[in-house]
Amino acid sequence: MGTDFSSLLSAIMPPSYVIPSDFDPSRHLSLVAKRRGVSPLKGMQKYLGTPGLLSMAGGLPNPDYFPFDELTANVLAHDQFPITPIGIATSRGTLDWLWNLFVTKPLKAAISVPKYSNQPDDIQLSTALQYQMAKGIPHYISLCREIVAKIHKPGYSNWEVLADDGNTDGWAKCVQTFCNPGEAVLYDEWTYPSALAAMKPYGVSAVPVAIDQQGMCSNNLREILESWDDNVRGSPRPHLMYIVPIGQNPTGATMGVERKQAIYDICVEYDVLIVEDDPYFFLQLGDYLPPAMRSTKYQDADQVFIDHLSPSFLRFDHQGRVIRLETFSKTIAPGCRLGWTTCAPLFAERLERASETSTQAPCGFSQVLVTTLLEQWKYEGYIRWLHGLAVQYARRRTLFVDLLMQKFDIEIQSPCVDSKRSANIVYSAYQKLSPYAADIEKGRRPHIFTFTPPTSGMFVWLKFNLDGHRRTPEDGDETTETLFWISVVKEGLLIGPGGMFAADQSVAKNSTAGHFRISFSTIKDEEMIAAVNMLAKAVDKFYA
Amino acid sequence: MGTDFSSLLSAIMPPSYVIPSDFDPSRHLSLVAKRRGVSPLKGMQKYLGTPGLLSMAGGLPNPDYFPFDELTANVLAHDQFPITPIGIATSRGTLDWLWNLFVTKPLKAAISVPKYSNQPDDIQLSTALQYQMAKGIPHYISLCREIVAKIHKPGYSNWEVLADDGNTDGWAKCVQTFCNPGEAVLYDEWTYPSALAAMKPYGVSAVPVAIDQQGMCSNNLREILESWDDNVRGSPRPHLMYIVPIGQNPTGATMGVERKQAIYDICVEYDVLIVEDDPYFFLQLGDYLPPAMRSTKYQDADQVFIDHLSPSFLRFDHQGRVIRLETFSKTIAPGCRLGWTTCAPLFAERLERASETSTQAPCGFSQVLVTTLLEQWKYEGYIRWLHGLAVQYARRRTLFVDLLMQKFDIEIQSPCVDSKRSANIVYSAYQKLSPYAADIEKGRRPHIFTFTPPTSGMFVWLKFNLDGHRRTPEDGDETTETLFWISVVKEGLLIGPGGMFAADQSVAKNSTAGHFRISFSTIKDEEMIAAVNMLAKAVDKFYA
Repeated sequence: MGTDFSSLLSAIMPPSYVIPSDFDPSRHLSLVAKRRGVSPLKGMQKYLGTPGLLSMAGGLPNPDYFPFDELTANVLAHDQFPITPIGIATSRGTLDWLWNLFVTKPLKAAISVPKYSNQPDDIQLSTALQYQMAKGIPHYISLCREIVAKIHKPGYSNWEVLADDGNTDGWAKCVQTFCNPGEAVLYDEWTYPSALAAMKPYGVSAVPVAIDQQGMCSNNLREILESWDDNVRGSPRPHLMYIVPIGQNPTGATMGVERKQAIYDICVEYDVLIVEDDPYFFLQLGDYLPPAMRSTKYQDADQVFIDHLSPSFLRFDHQGRVIRLETFSKTIAPGCRLGWTTCAPLFAERLERASETSTQAPCGFSQVLVTTLLEQWKYEGYIRWLHGLAVQYARRRTLFVDLLMQKFDIEIQSPCVDSKRSANIVYSAYQKLSPYAADIEKGRRPHIFTFTPPTSGMFVWLKFNLDGHRRTPEDGDETTETLFWISVVKEGLLIGPGGMFAADQSVAKNSTAGHFRISFSTIKDEEMIAAVNMLAKAVDKFYA
Repeated sequence: MGTDFSSLLSAIMPPSYVIPSDFDPSRHLSLVAKRRGVSPLKGMQKYLGTPGLLSMAGGLPNPDYFPFDELTANVLAHDQFPITPIGIATSRGTLDWLWNLFVTKPLKAAISVPKYSNQPDDIQLSTALQYQMAKGIPHYISLCREIVAKIHKPGYSNWEVLADDGNTDGWAKCVQTFCNPGEAVLYDEWTYPSALAAMKPYGVSAVPVAIDQQGMCSNNLREILESWDDNVRGSPRPHLMYIVPIGQNPTGATMGVERKQAIYDICVEYDVLIVEDDPYFFLQLGDYLPPAMRSTKYQDADQVFIDHLSPSFLRFDHQGRVIRLETFSKTIAPGCRLGWTTCAPLFAERLERASETSTQAPCGFSQVLVTTLLEQWKYEGYIRWLHGLAVQYARRRTLFVDLLMQKFDIEIQSPCVDSKRSANIVYSAYQKLSPYAADIEKGRRPHIFTFTPPTSGMFVWLKFNLDGHRRTPEDGDETTETLFWISVVKEGLLIGPGGMFAADQSVAKNSTAGHFRISFSTIKDEEMIAAVNMLAKAVDKFYA
């Protein structure tokens, strides 16, 4: 037989899980992982395939009765999208620099997954569509580990990865695992509203931290933690941070290395766990350069693209206090509902328990299709795919900013365009006047909005100065932001009003400023041109 | 334009959700739906396709960049499995009645899903793999509604369905939506351990209710609720019940109509919501009949199969207090991670909010593949498929019980085999002696175990009488159940020890009885024969 009865027994009848015995208190990580019941059946499943042991123990349907017999997909090639220059400004200042990078005739290949394979370790529907270990099928875990090891390079060695249903799911499990009612979590002051909504029912509140063009400000973070008074705040000092450090949602901000190091160090000092929600990591687009400054020679090698990416918090993580949420939603498709969490073993074990009693493993179709695609492309092919995607989104970002430059008078507040610091440059937009009037007026009239061209992600964040609007009785109680938003909708354009992204709603409602998140990810070129015209018209009417 | 600005605004900036204004207090349903933050972005998504309105509002990746271009699957035919007689006993009493019902040459067909279709309402990857409404794609919702309307026929009219990631996910969302810390939930005394584990981290406890061959006992339920004392129990009277009424896990019990009506009425009286976790609904196998009593003429029409199914609690639900969890895990495959919840609009709205901030919509691959398969089969084809499945599992159940009948001396406690009440019949098993010795000994020796052949599901529940075992010092502190379980494993057979299914673990540990869940769903015929021999050998040794 050769069965190890004691380990079999302990798998089926595990001791109550509290903190594992290998927990190292010298790291003084918050003792936050909650006691969570474990399903003993899951432990037993490991033994279901033990040689020589017949099983009538599992609650498994018979795979012979799965109606899916073979799965095939036509897929794009890993080099579907070019990585050639993203645009060349012409002397005419028109838009004809926008050559179409999209190859209209797709280079298709096929992948397929059989129901049964001769090799038990192969990817096959008979096992992938069966009940699975919640942390994912082994092939999927392997490819996630490869990405983490080669790209993120965590600052410690025994990190773990486990599958989840995407970052929203990953964050919900973090809230439910690490937070107790009455606690508070550190947030960017403008943030992803679903992340806030995931905490609300559990009695967990948000503590907004100020942000700038690089995202969360380390000095404000320190002030908040340093001056924390449980009695004044009504909750214990936060031990958890939620942060989107790259292509931040909604502001598009990307955090540089120094800022990340500073924030990590403060989290060490105050024992804060960092949940890094990083869906836009591979959509790092490079700096926006005004047309006159663009080179036609841009074409990095794929590895250069990877080497220049702003690193994950994992890179700085020598203590295992970062829980990184990564997803295929932006690099493959959101409907995959497939991502993974990278974290220390202590937390991985807790989060796996959370999956076992909620989502279980991610969808088997998704796991096999994404895994088979990436195994066919191989690591190098996937990197090439990501590089191509980034160039595509960069082109969209550039077109949108170019259009703003054309429809408004733009003043660049830091004239020294240093590519390493372009994330800090503020563009101020003024109403477009005739060239003659513009020369006279410049500097004397108030700007309409400011923005920083994003270096990552899908969003441009416009900060409007709406003080100049004269309110009328018909405006009622609406905020000025809402009034302007309605003006834009009336022109025929839907954009994201900033109020919905405020971590502290009272701030958003009392502000006279207006903020808007504008996404350049899906709109067609000709529609984008129309959209910026609509925005300019709405501005003209709002200030008329 | 034609845009309704006020509804657009309220979708984007919804009022804080509490209980909807159409909540009818005359129904005196528990006011249990928790206040839950709603993501305003989700509300706005409804307007993204408004004609004449350009959108730069959504945070959506571009579907042109989804690498999956077309999805194809070979699938079994809806009539793959015969519905002909499940077995004929021969005069020789051997196993040759077991003709192989599995058609070894699959009747394959193909389904396929394009990336783009000319018709916007068609199923297509460009929308199914995009962010979606959490409640599911419209085609999927339609087919779930058809099943509920035609088969379950709820007792009220405005029920809703919404997609989830299977019943474990559905139950986790119910716990998180309906329960507050310190509350208690009504359970079968033997139950699905993952359901218990899903509550534990939220400080919600289980109140076990006694069960018999039909599952939860209505008289014990009434006693518990009637005599409830918050101070003694340490929690308010439960307002939520978790129940697996058909093919109960682990006991295999199936609840009849009268019992369901009685339990529903008590829940009305004490204002208890019923969460009906019903994965085995379509695996209703019919009665087990001893070989001599079997007819060779069995072949019901598909509609007769459907008409004879024990109905869902929904059928009795005139108040909208049943939350039914249904899944494709047992009828298609568990790896689909796809199911749906049927409930009153009040609760559907809350549960949709819960999905938006955790799983979001179920996997798009799964939704399109399952929906396309069922649309190709059509409703009638799916019913035929389910009928075929039930016959397959019935044949497995029958083989297993036949084998027990052969390896043990069986006494049937209710000799009047009435097919309508066969769920109540108790089979008592004795060690097999020679025919001569058996005749002498019958009635004088203690039985080894009792069971009721299940009429649904995948499990047989054996209740062992282990008092006869003489403990030795080597037994240590292990329960007698664990000792016998080890004996069975040593023979080479893994079965599910009952202890893991106890809603109250202290009961399980102090009991001298042993309970075992045995699954007949996946094991091959020849292995099942070997497995029953191993069980009999373990019995012989344990009592030696």
